[in-house]
Amino acid sequence: MVTDKGSMLQPHQLSLNTASVRAQWDLGQCIEGCARHGFGGISPWRDKLQEMGVAAAARAIRDAGLGVSGLCRGGLFTAEGRLTEAVIDDNRRAVDEAAAIGAECLVFVVGGLPAGSRDLEGARSLVEDGLGRTLDYARAAGVRLAIEPLHPMYAADRACVNTTRQALDICDRLGGGIGVALDVYHVWWDPEIEAQIARAGKARLLAFHVCDWLVPTRDMLTDRGMMGDGVIDIRRLRRAVQANGFEGLVEVEIFSADNWWKRDADEVMRTIAARAAEYC
Amino acid sequence: MVTDKGSMLQPHQLSLNTASVRAQWDLGQCIEGCARHGFGGISPWRDKLQEMGVAAAARAIRDAGLGVSGLCRGGLFTAEGRLTEAVIDDNRRAVDEAAAIGAECLVFVVGGLPAGSRDLEGARSLVEDGLGRTLDYARAAGVRLAIEPLHPMYAADRACVNTTRQALDICDRLGGGIGVALDVYHVWWDPEIEAQIARAGKARLLAFHVCDWLVPTRDMLTDRGMMGDGVIDIRRLRRAVQANGFEGLVEVEIFSADNWWKRDADEVMRTIAARAAEYC
Repeated sequence: MVTDKGSMLQPHQLSLNTASVRAQWDLGQCIEGCARHGFGGISPWRDKLQEMGVAAAARAIRDAGLGVSGLCRGGLFTAEGRLTEAVIDDNRRAVDEAAAIGAECLVFVVGGLPAGSRDLEGARSLVEDGLGRTLDYARAAGVRLAIEPLHPMYAADRACVNTTRQALDICDRLGGGIGVALDVYHVWWDPEIEAQIARAGKARLLAFHVCDWLVPTRDMLTDRGMMGDGVIDIRRLRRAVQANGFEGLVEVEIFSADNWWKRDADEVMRTIAARAAEYC
Repeated sequence: MVTDKGSMLQPHQLSLNTASVRAQWDLGQCIEGCARHGFGGISPWRDKLQEMGVAAAARAIRDAGLGVSGLCRGGLFTAEGRLTEAVIDDNRRAVDEAAAIGAECLVFVVGGLPAGSRDLEGARSLVEDGLGRTLDYARAAGVRLAIEPLHPMYAADRACVNTTRQALDICDRLGGGIGVALDVYHVWWDPEIEAQIARAGKARLLAFHVCDWLVPTRDMLTDRGMMGDGVIDIRRLRRAVQANGFEGLVEVEIFSADNWWKRDADEVMRTIAARAAEYC
């Protein structure tokens, strides 16, 4: 049901997160696909970026006239239980890559509990240290960092930053150059999401990701839905970020092992465009 | 690792939520099992209570000398999309049953989104109306209501009250006779859980449930872990509720289709007692 044609999303307002077709296309194909379907931008994952080569990818993205709504992902600060040089270096390389492709932000999946640990507070403290150290480097490189609060069901194994409030508290302590990447999948349930979006404002709202929450959800990681197939009021959330200053592309990121990853990628792109117009 | 023998939980401080052995025992067997293993109390689900008969169950529980840490469950206010008489009547019957067995509280799983709806705010408003109407009845019956905030991964299909803050906000608006049932499984990830426990205080802390969060979690509903098998720092949370006035039994509620529900129930009871001493 389209109630407001004036705000209907057009393909040029969309960005393809490469995870949405990661089983079908490499980064070169994603870039061509975005251009072919009139998408305004792209958001690569680092594995696909490195596979193509950062310089070649940067050139191809520029030649295709695409924006880069983000680079996925920095973080995983807790992977070794402490901030090793390897962890810090990897995040600095991610900053360099984000700069090279002109990404609007580097998106952070910060890491969960270290193996064998129950110390959630300790993990959160470690993450904040890691973000702070990366931020010093990123400011010099002119790259903005975007903390992605992940759904609380990932607190143990993926990211111990789990609410927008918590992410913004970290941003407030760390200062300029860092904000949030809000994915409707992770935040739609939050009773205070609209208040926190207002708190974030233009300076902290660095990315906006969409997909849908399926009922039932059969897999906690790879059973996300196409917009319109689930229960999230995506348009309400998009209006909230827009009303608070977000002017970026709407990035579509769908992990779907049993459905969209099995389909023809051009069909996926057409479906994304149609559903974004209807539901976002 | 037991670091503090002085606070080691004894079986008489435990309550068995009947869901933990729901595949093995009926309510009569649960009552006998609790007595045999020296548990201090029980918390029945309504299906098992009705199967045995409320009066017979009340008598058997009393004769066994068991406390009743709660009755599971009232709620599901959104099941029909509005507060029908059927929904209100069912909740009043739940209040009557809680009174009949002398339960410390009636635990509420409030309901998720109505079928086909994306209106989370509307569902939350409906839930609050339903709780308010049930509360009037419960006050007269001398039964305390306990909102159980459910993990955000259940927001769509089970309960749209998903944080302790949100539950306490509802309590504040509704007044006396209502509080929260905190299950570590649902709240362990919450960055502000300790602050909200302090806010709740003795008057609002009506029940405390334990189990564990497994990594990986293979099923969103029935793959909960035995205490010690997962990543939750249960002892930290128990200390927090105790420090803020909770003096009730520690209720063990483990949904485990592929593990604990398949084992001999007396083995489950022994394991609960041992793990509670070590991890709670």
